[in-house]
Amino acid sequence: MTTAPTRYRIDVAYDGTDYAGWQIQPNGVTVQQRLEEAIKALTGEAPKVHGSGRTDQGVHAARQVAHFDLQRAVPLQTLTRGLNGLLPKDIRVGRVTKAAADFHARRSATGKEYRYFIWNAELMSPFLRRYRAHVKPPLNVAAMREAAAHLVGRHDFAAFTANPNRAVESTIRNLTLLAVSKRGRTVTITARADGFLYRMVRSLAGFLIRVGEGAVSPGEAPSILSSRTRTARVPTAPPQGLFLWNVKY
Amino acid sequence: MTTAPTRYRIDVAYDGTDYAGWQIQPNGVTVQQRLEEAIKALTGEAPKVHGSGRTDQGVHAARQVAHFDLQRAVPLQTLTRGLNGLLPKDIRVGRVTKAAADFHARRSATGKEYRYFIWNAELMSPFLRRYRAHVKPPLNVAAMREAAAHLVGRHDFAAFTANPNRAVESTIRNLTLLAVSKRGRTVTITARADGFLYRMVRSLAGFLIRVGEGAVSPGEAPSILSSRTRTARVPTAPPQGLFLWNVKY
Repeated sequence: MTTAPTRYRIDVAYDGTDYAGWQIQPNGVTVQQRLEEAIKALTGEAPKVHGSGRTDQGVHAARQVAHFDLQRAVPLQTLTRGLNGLLPKDIRVGRVTKAAADFHARRSATGKEYRYFIWNAELMSPFLRRYRAHVKPPLNVAAMREAAAHLVGRHDFAAFTANPNRAVESTIRNLTLLAVSKRGRTVTITARADGFLYRMVRSLAGFLIRVGEGAVSPGEAPSILSSRTRTARVPTAPPQGLFLWNVKY
Repeated sequence: MTTAPTRYRIDVAYDGTDYAGWQIQPNGVTVQQRLEEAIKALTGEAPKVHGSGRTDQGVHAARQVAHFDLQRAVPLQTLTRGLNGLLPKDIRVGRVTKAAADFHARRSATGKEYRYFIWNAELMSPFLRRYRAHVKPPLNVAAMREAAAHLVGRHDFAAFTANPNRAVESTIRNLTLLAVSKRGRTVTITARADGFLYRMVRSLAGFLIRVGEGAVSPGEAPSILSSRTRTARVPTAPPQGLFLWNVKY
């Protein structure tokens, strides 16, 4: 008689600075790799850890969600404490829960939130340099908001994704929120959608920064969208400002 | 005819995580060393950089003050931008000003403020791990405040300094503020004095943490002070929570 494996869901926060992104790859250490190593060291089993999606090199997660299966059930507190004891300090497991057998971190996700943080001052803070993009000239937040309003909704975001060689079934996404706020020297872009294309948030951020700098007019947003073509008006903002903030199920 | 050298004052912020402290020493890279290297690369001169005081390995500065002399005057903006261009990103020169010939970063200082930050939660944030001491059990902030109140004033702080082998003229200091506040998961200890002994702030923080954990009673503070003897009730709190916050002239 065989028992069904137990599926676990983990909520993970990480400082992506020193990782080659989420997904295991031949060159460089990744977050997924460190999690799989820690699970193996703790349980003796070697399950694949499935994340809600990839994050690029240098991108952070306040809350990434992943799942994995274990043949022998392990108490949740043992998993949380054991994994945090084994993992490097820039990866923290915030919560482990048992998940339904059909829960899938990527396929079950109904939406995601990303936040992009910009340090908008002449001099970068030495304490936030890993977590902020640096833009020196004062950004016009009102113009950024005006441009953002044009992008909210269900659109074809082909003009806001990098690497067009990647096969994607559809470039249509429903962007439910694209907000720009400023507090102190930090300008924050918050983006929510049912899903995001490859480098879509960094492309939206790159475009909004160009608008905030006055290099692109907010009114150009609709024509860029409808062009479905990547142009210099949509640069990819640097990775260190980006946080996967939440995954919705 | 020789001209008098120009004295410059610089306000410097640094993330001390990757440095063997402020002061130049044979083992490990220091902040003073990086500043002297940058000044030499920029100006061709090799002045000694005098800080307001040392910070230990792993200790940060939101605002350290230093001075140095140059034979050939350099415009202030050239110094600020040039030094920041040459320095690593974890050291930032916030401001350069011309100082009076008799200004001395250490000897002219009339007071200093340090802040000690504690992350008081079961799980450390991966983003703040370089800038917070980690204390898991909930701290009793009221008890910490009560203990702190006993320590404010002009006292002999021999019981709150490490390394008693160090020759010090006097161990009497005037502690004008020792405040404990809590915001979210961060407990902050703010200390102001006319000057601090070696590892005094980390000793005060170590003691207050013991009090907050309930291991030492607030009422023991006066007898510890008057004992002038270092005991286990006064451990040295870890360096990463400590920031030199300001220097007063």
